[in-house]
Amino acid sequence: MKTIVEQLEPLFKPESVAVIGASNTPAKWGFRMITRLLQTGYRGAIYAVNPHEPKVANQPTYRSIADIPGKVDLAVITVPASHVPNVMQDCANKGVPAAVLITAGFAEVGYEGKVLEDKVAKIAREGGVRFVGPNGMGIWSAAGMLNLAFGKAPLAGPIAFVSQSGTFGVALSEIAGAKGYGLSKFISIGNQADLAAEDYLEYLATDEETKVVVFYMEGLKNGRRFIDVAKQVVKQKPIIIFKAGRTDAGSKATQSHTASLAGSDEIFEAVCSQVGLIRVREALHTFDVAEALAHQPLPKGKRVAILGSGGQGVVTADACASLGLEIPELDSDTVRSLMAGLPPHAPPPRNPVDFAGSVRTAKEEAAVVEKLMSRDYIDGIICNTPLNPAAFGSTFGFTGMNKALIDLAKSAIEGADLFSSLPAKYGKPILTVRFRRFSQDIVVDILKGAGIPVYDTPEETARAMEALVRYAEIRERAQAKT
Amino acid sequence: MKTIVEQLEPLFKPESVAVIGASNTPAKWGFRMITRLLQTGYRGAIYAVNPHEPKVANQPTYRSIADIPGKVDLAVITVPASHVPNVMQDCANKGVPAAVLITAGFAEVGYEGKVLEDKVAKIAREGGVRFVGPNGMGIWSAAGMLNLAFGKAPLAGPIAFVSQSGTFGVALSEIAGAKGYGLSKFISIGNQADLAAEDYLEYLATDEETKVVVFYMEGLKNGRRFIDVAKQVVKQKPIIIFKAGRTDAGSKATQSHTASLAGSDEIFEAVCSQVGLIRVREALHTFDVAEALAHQPLPKGKRVAILGSGGQGVVTADACASLGLEIPELDSDTVRSLMAGLPPHAPPPRNPVDFAGSVRTAKEEAAVVEKLMSRDYIDGIICNTPLNPAAFGSTFGFTGMNKALIDLAKSAIEGADLFSSLPAKYGKPILTVRFRRFSQDIVVDILKGAGIPVYDTPEETARAMEALVRYAEIRERAQAKT
Repeated sequence: MKTIVEQLEPLFKPESVAVIGASNTPAKWGFRMITRLLQTGYRGAIYAVNPHEPKVANQPTYRSIADIPGKVDLAVITVPASHVPNVMQDCANKGVPAAVLITAGFAEVGYEGKVLEDKVAKIAREGGVRFVGPNGMGIWSAAGMLNLAFGKAPLAGPIAFVSQSGTFGVALSEIAGAKGYGLSKFISIGNQADLAAEDYLEYLATDEETKVVVFYMEGLKNGRRFIDVAKQVVKQKPIIIFKAGRTDAGSKATQSHTASLAGSDEIFEAVCSQVGLIRVREALHTFDVAEALAHQPLPKGKRVAILGSGGQGVVTADACASLGLEIPELDSDTVRSLMAGLPPHAPPPRNPVDFAGSVRTAKEEAAVVEKLMSRDYIDGIICNTPLNPAAFGSTFGFTGMNKALIDLAKSAIEGADLFSSLPAKYGKPILTVRFRRFSQDIVVDILKGAGIPVYDTPEETARAMEALVRYAEIRERAQAKT
Repeated sequence: MKTIVEQLEPLFKPESVAVIGASNTPAKWGFRMITRLLQTGYRGAIYAVNPHEPKVANQPTYRSIADIPGKVDLAVITVPASHVPNVMQDCANKGVPAAVLITAGFAEVGYEGKVLEDKVAKIAREGGVRFVGPNGMGIWSAAGMLNLAFGKAPLAGPIAFVSQSGTFGVALSEIAGAKGYGLSKFISIGNQADLAAEDYLEYLATDEETKVVVFYMEGLKNGRRFIDVAKQVVKQKPIIIFKAGRTDAGSKATQSHTASLAGSDEIFEAVCSQVGLIRVREALHTFDVAEALAHQPLPKGKRVAILGSGGQGVVTADACASLGLEIPELDSDTVRSLMAGLPPHAPPPRNPVDFAGSVRTAKEEAAVVEKLMSRDYIDGIICNTPLNPAAFGSTFGFTGMNKALIDLAKSAIEGADLFSSLPAKYGKPILTVRFRRFSQDIVVDILKGAGIPVYDTPEETARAMEALVRYAEIRERAQAKT
């Protein structure tokens, strides 16, 4: 018998895909599935199955999957619910190993739907077809540029996102993309009639492209098995979970959505803590936190040095302290050596280190960061508006001053390079806040290219640092148990 | 004696501005001040004062403010701290009524600085000059397109932002701008040697362009007077406050920043609750909340109807409920009449109303919103991805399907128009979530143009709704007291 990892290979890395129910009607899922495959980068064979149309999206069609001459690794099923049992049987007969069942109208609509869903699952099980769904919105796999879920293919990256909600999962993924975070996989898991959250988790644990696994869940179907799998996975990879249905009002709403019993939030909280799941309280926080976990070394403790002028430093210190991070006082040697780099009116540096509005060179700034990083009582660094000089160019609007701008940019690039080398050198994380919505400059590209996260606000950054600290503890504890 | 409002008119609506210390050196404040005035829309007279350069930014210079032939409403002072007493005396002699003192190196650096600051304040007081600062980063006033604070002039709008931190205040303002929120005023208040938070508040209370006042504060200088003024203002306009220095670590950092004593957070919390200040916990939340307060009618209670498919509805319900908002069950008449508009597989509508992925027309959707709004047990509406059809066009990437796209856009525009008329018609707020980072479409423009806020996430939206409910209570209570 094949392992789950072997079973899911054709799902995430298919050499050929058939869309059953491919359509020319834009509002239909069969249209979205075929056009996305054709237009967003998938390079395997694509077959359109539709018994009524000679062509769909300018592709010749097949009357049924049985008529397709070559092998089919993945079937995408979009036909009406009542036809799904027959189509699933066709897939089994054809020897299709994996399917994505988009169609809605199963367990989520009540008893009759549940009966139909069970029938489909039985056919698939007996026929050797593993499937996603039903009632999902598709998947994305960076491995094969296989995109069924989005209007455009997302950025490829180290975050796998498993979502029990299709619409919301897609929206979150798109926000993640706009923030520059890349996805290795996205799976809208739907009703989990066959493959369930824990199956995907087991696969993703071994997936080399995935460094962090993010879940949007409303309720766990097989809580016991999920917990067992997760306990193993957290030894190697962090798991971040956003749980919807945590209030009575939200919990009621999950029932008509995914027929999930959201369960007691206290119990869920206890499970997270016991297993070592990193729970986030706000949907958008998932990816901010994931980005740091995917790229930065884990800190050995929770003592953070902060760089930031004025209010930036204050707000960052508040945000860190309120999450339980520590902001240690600097020793007098460090204070003395930092003073050299500050302007005369700046107060003696504390933590947060305030540059007091001085225009320093990027190299000087990188030197300050390195000095702090080398101290054994500092476990990680948060740096507000790093490599400021380049920002001066854009923020202060130099007109006709190309020479000055070029010098600043050169200096910033040099500094960014220095910055980027530090996390690996000292085995400590650097996170930055750059209010980047306005500074889409070369420095941001270099920092992000080197895996140094660039956040919008001090609060986002503090949450990411806290998650690094927490996962370091989780992993140590989990590894100690074995 | 002039009122504070009369005294501050020349500050915010000057007919002429002199930059004392205007400079050709990009890294200097004197450069930024003169170039911003010249390049970002200010239309009054601009005078550059510099005794050493014949021209600055291609403007002829004056040796001192005394040499300027015409009257000067506003002096912007950027000379080194030790020169400021003389310059302030020159301003007094010239009869300049208002100044912005950018220069740092006063009370924030210690005792000697404090002595110098007191001296400057005394000269100004005796000479009839009211001034902002020192140690600030300038102001913005939409009234005269007077921009000293930003690289580019911000969007004009109904939010006044008073910030005790320059750098962070500017960064937040720029984020607000990127989110489409407009500012009537921005004031980086610096050390408040003369004008202080409560003076600006008193002015803004009467400012017709300002509908909401937002504060970033580290500590109140004249707590008693601020409270007295605020108690009056909240009868007419909401005050939102973000308080930095709420933890020990943050509080320590405020001392070297603005020499503020952050004080006990419990006391501050009690003051907010007693006075009716709307406190936000995360810096970026200020403007999300302000935008709703500036544009939407106040709800009469806290009962919210939610529209949103699947996870969107669940997460919105969670976010609302966890802030104490109520999500009432719908009555059976309403349920019956909503069912007509839903697809056959959709479950009977509850609250949240789930469209179950159906493609409805924008008009149908607006009709559902209106139906809910007309119910006397609904105080406000949160609508996820309103007027979805238009989004289909962009999200699902219609290629070569212009006719379909145009029809969708037409329908969405019609729906957006209907939507926009509803808050005034029923006197109830509508807030929307559109994940707008990816749907910069015409619908967003229409909604925002009509004052319907468009947020990125359900959580932002719930916070804004809660603030509307809270301010309705605050205002009622405050007005009842008089």
